[in-house]
Amino acid sequence: MIKSVAIQGVKGSFHHIVSQQYFDENIVVDECMTFDAVIDSIIKDKSDAAIMAIENSIAGSIIPNYALIDTHNLHIVGEHYLDIQHHLMALPNQTIDDIKEVYSHPMALLQCKAFFKQYPHIKLIEDIDTAQVAQRIQENQTTNIAAIASRLAAQLFELNIISESIQTIKHNETRFFIVRTKNSEIPENEINKASIKFELDHKRGSLATILNVLSDCMLNLTKIQSLPKIETPWKYAFFVDVTFESYKDYDKAKSIMKIMAQDLKVLGEYKNARL
Amino acid sequence: MIKSVAIQGVKGSFHHIVSQQYFDENIVVDECMTFDAVIDSIIKDKSDAAIMAIENSIAGSIIPNYALIDTHNLHIVGEHYLDIQHHLMALPNQTIDDIKEVYSHPMALLQCKAFFKQYPHIKLIEDIDTAQVAQRIQENQTTNIAAIASRLAAQLFELNIISESIQTIKHNETRFFIVRTKNSEIPENEINKASIKFELDHKRGSLATILNVLSDCMLNLTKIQSLPKIETPWKYAFFVDVTFESYKDYDKAKSIMKIMAQDLKVLGEYKNARL
Repeated sequence: MIKSVAIQGVKGSFHHIVSQQYFDENIVVDECMTFDAVIDSIIKDKSDAAIMAIENSIAGSIIPNYALIDTHNLHIVGEHYLDIQHHLMALPNQTIDDIKEVYSHPMALLQCKAFFKQYPHIKLIEDIDTAQVAQRIQENQTTNIAAIASRLAAQLFELNIISESIQTIKHNETRFFIVRTKNSEIPENEINKASIKFELDHKRGSLATILNVLSDCMLNLTKIQSLPKIETPWKYAFFVDVTFESYKDYDKAKSIMKIMAQDLKVLGEYKNARL
Repeated sequence: MIKSVAIQGVKGSFHHIVSQQYFDENIVVDECMTFDAVIDSIIKDKSDAAIMAIENSIAGSIIPNYALIDTHNLHIVGEHYLDIQHHLMALPNQTIDDIKEVYSHPMALLQCKAFFKQYPHIKLIEDIDTAQVAQRIQENQTTNIAAIASRLAAQLFELNIISESIQTIKHNETRFFIVRTKNSEIPENEINKASIKFELDHKRGSLATILNVLSDCMLNLTKIQSLPKIETPWKYAFFVDVTFESYKDYDKAKSIMKIMAQDLKVLGEYKNARL
């Protein structure tokens, strides 16, 4: 039973929203300022599960988070997709003309850069977390400063949204993993997605051969990403997500891949959130 | 003839080092503070070529830079690999105990985070460019502040390296593209690598089929990355790099892929820097 989760950021952050949508509003959250701290929280049993952003439709995969899951031998037990909407917010009765500085997470600033071209008087400043800035503005009653954060952050910290959905690309989806130190025992008939990692030598056709196996076993590929292994030139690691209708098909593919690829590692088997 | 290049960062930055290694030390550089400005510099004919970091062995692909190349229909005319070494530097006669704050690019701070665990009194602050901090320390003769930057930056701005190669992962390679608005006319017999983009429907085995074509045509895959197309669910874009011995083989594969994949686009054909 999962009662507490570690999230990156404070309450009102996008990780917090995911914790509420995936579990419910009563879930206890441990607010962590870095992904390292998030992992620490589950390893030290402070939290039952962790929530980690893993890729978004603008910037692609967050490879360091894959590395954290891999090196700590954690288990992905679920996934969740969130449509990220960034709002500009400040204390009530502040207008856009009052704002001199906007603080937010570098990724949020990047995604909203175009909006601020029409307001050259506003200085953009990087901060550690989107929601934390909102919290600080309320606590210190700071005027002339705005945050870029979620609607939940505006509600929690009683800020006024000056401008809605200011990100350049209006549909900006981020995928999150729910991660645990031990495998959740999801019944096999409920599992229809898996994240795996394997290595291949740089030999012509080696990846095509593996993908043929997946296809022959009725698995669908929903993601693939190669990463060169720097310590061993000409060797590649692949992170692959597959979906399937029957666990048996997946199990068969796994057995074949174990023989054909090197260092096959299952990062997680879980329910597809896209159904 | 390429006489000038746009780089991200100031002189002493890693992009500057790449410009010197790929061309020579006499190349004229346009110092740009963002990748958007880098692209602007070649589009407005201020520079003959642009240098752009595209992936590194720690964080993976820099997807927004792929998007810049793609949306502006630019041509990749070359690649270069650089082993990134981060050094801690300050004014001469400053020691690590004098340092209270370290400014650098977020990526550099991330890569050196572990080193600073032994110095909890030092505050890490994000800045726009690694080398620019070094320049500022020299110009303002700032004590108690250090930069994380390249050896070239230490030399150019006469700073003393307090600690060498402080990044956690000692071998940290970054790949750069040399990009132009028009295709450089590289003779076909010198081309042995290409970066292509294509789209596929989410149909079982569709990617395997394409990779079989590449393999049948004697092409080696050196990189693959899928990106979901958010506007059109179940459609994926793939960024793929291939190497080959004969341009004819590649040309044949290209003809077949044009028929089998959707929206095949060649982002560049160039010389493999890995030979």
